[in-house]
Amino acid sequence: MEKLAVIALGGNAITRGDEKGTIEEQYKNSSDTIRNLIYLIKDGYNLVLSHGNGPQVGNILLRNDAGEEIYDIPQMPLDICVADSQGGIGYMLEKMLRNILKEEGIDREVVTIVTQVVVSKDDPAFENYTKRVGKLYSKERADEMAAKKGWVFKANSKNDDKWRRVVPSPEPKEIMNERIIKDLVNSGVIVIASGGGGIPVYYDEKGMLQALEAVIDKDAASSLLASRIGADEFYILTDVPYVYANYGTPQQKIMEFLNKEKITQMIDKGEFGEGSMLPKIKSALRFVENGGQKSVITEASKLEDRKFGSRITLN
Amino acid sequence: MEKLAVIALGGNAITRGDEKGTIEEQYKNSSDTIRNLIYLIKDGYNLVLSHGNGPQVGNILLRNDAGEEIYDIPQMPLDICVADSQGGIGYMLEKMLRNILKEEGIDREVVTIVTQVVVSKDDPAFENYTKRVGKLYSKERADEMAAKKGWVFKANSKNDDKWRRVVPSPEPKEIMNERIIKDLVNSGVIVIASGGGGIPVYYDEKGMLQALEAVIDKDAASSLLASRIGADEFYILTDVPYVYANYGTPQQKIMEFLNKEKITQMIDKGEFGEGSMLPKIKSALRFVENGGQKSVITEASKLEDRKFGSRITLN
Repeated sequence: MEKLAVIALGGNAITRGDEKGTIEEQYKNSSDTIRNLIYLIKDGYNLVLSHGNGPQVGNILLRNDAGEEIYDIPQMPLDICVADSQGGIGYMLEKMLRNILKEEGIDREVVTIVTQVVVSKDDPAFENYTKRVGKLYSKERADEMAAKKGWVFKANSKNDDKWRRVVPSPEPKEIMNERIIKDLVNSGVIVIASGGGGIPVYYDEKGMLQALEAVIDKDAASSLLASRIGADEFYILTDVPYVYANYGTPQQKIMEFLNKEKITQMIDKGEFGEGSMLPKIKSALRFVENGGQKSVITEASKLEDRKFGSRITLN
Repeated sequence: MEKLAVIALGGNAITRGDEKGTIEEQYKNSSDTIRNLIYLIKDGYNLVLSHGNGPQVGNILLRNDAGEEIYDIPQMPLDICVADSQGGIGYMLEKMLRNILKEEGIDREVVTIVTQVVVSKDDPAFENYTKRVGKLYSKERADEMAAKKGWVFKANSKNDDKWRRVVPSPEPKEIMNERIIKDLVNSGVIVIASGGGGIPVYYDEKGMLQALEAVIDKDAASSLLASRIGADEFYILTDVPYVYANYGTPQQKIMEFLNKEKITQMIDKGEFGEGSMLPKIKSALRFVENGGQKSVITEASKLEDRKFGSRITLN
């Protein structure tokens, strides 16, 4: 039985929070994660792989800053940095997946597509910048960069005088090349696409594509991609095996099955963290609302067991 | 009459030698170059676009160096830097081409594929490192980096005490995903692939793909790609309109038509610069030796005229 699934890997599947992000660490983590995809592939799934890029694009931004400081090399805008990260991460995942497929004696092609994702210039996100990117600056330096580059800064926390650049995080509206991705994946090719939420672009009043200094949530973009290519299932791989009720309390409880009604209740009760589980839950729900069979939120190591993770359906 | 052509853009089509490489400069140059492709597209050509990445990957390497120095961020190996540059440049070219196609009212899809290129570990290039990459170092710092990272350095010139990292430049043997590229381009999609000569990899004794600290000549990789997908024509776009005999002398002469015999004579006479026209001529000749109809070496602005540039055929 051939099924089409989109798998969204978290950025921590590549660089863990406690690591510096050496290439050896990145290969080790990615390899551990990707090896688990074999279970789905052996079950006959066609796969699209998307991935986060938080730690990687963070480092690329820092390198841009350092390169300007030491060598006076012009900094690249955020969209180019996201595109760079799609190239580097996509290549690393593709190579690793090719090797694991060969070890397993499975004959499947793998291709990485640099993916633009279209947002609306009228998105309310452009009124309220929420996504922190890049390095911490002193107030003085932040003011200087704001004047020079038009960047917007917010205080990092109440406890220090550090400032961090914030950018908008608009909703994805269109995945570029979805037709090509769909055809490739339905012919059995494993496609790596929409890395880091996609490279954010918008159509101007003349219908021309323009770059944006923004970051699109990778689970939101992956959910849209999954819907647009008619995927049956959507997997969000993260660092917990399940979604929990009363997370982090003595009453913590595994939620093995979730539907729209239950999720709505839990969101209303404020059960999910703004920067962590909430966007994942919303993207998982969006996929089944758009006609997908089920979404799954779990960690990669649980893919071996065919009854794993939190399964999310409409009803 | 539908024809399939591979077009290789020089790195200077994106960042000119006298520029710092700001994003505005890169868009301006790329746009000027890409606008000329419309002539081929209107003539019914199917196109694969490849591109150099010299100035861009040079900056990425410098940023890696600076990021390590200021923020202690681990440097990425050369293969990841090439992959990053494929993402950033590919995205920029794709977006620009999409806009120009829209302006012209031409309905064509454009897709950018992150491309690995396989070389042989037995390539003689691994005995003699020739390709200079990255920044200039003092002797002391070069020795330090050589000890720390195993990099190889050569003196930059006889006149200063600056040292530069050198890497091997092996022959491309296999373009990954050539089947997918061929199918896409034959269905009318414009494919951007094999940027910067491709990400260099090799198969180890177990048949596993391994990364390499190397740089593949972009014209050699593009020539191989053109042959493997059965292209009719192969274009190398550079900063001169023609190949010349007696270049730079009072006897300089435009070579409008060249064949294998003539090229062999001229190579034997040492007519072509090692780091400039020679690799282009060799890649152009290789394509027609492998069965291609013709290669063309010219500058982008000459594409408007249908009888342009130096045309290279076998006989």
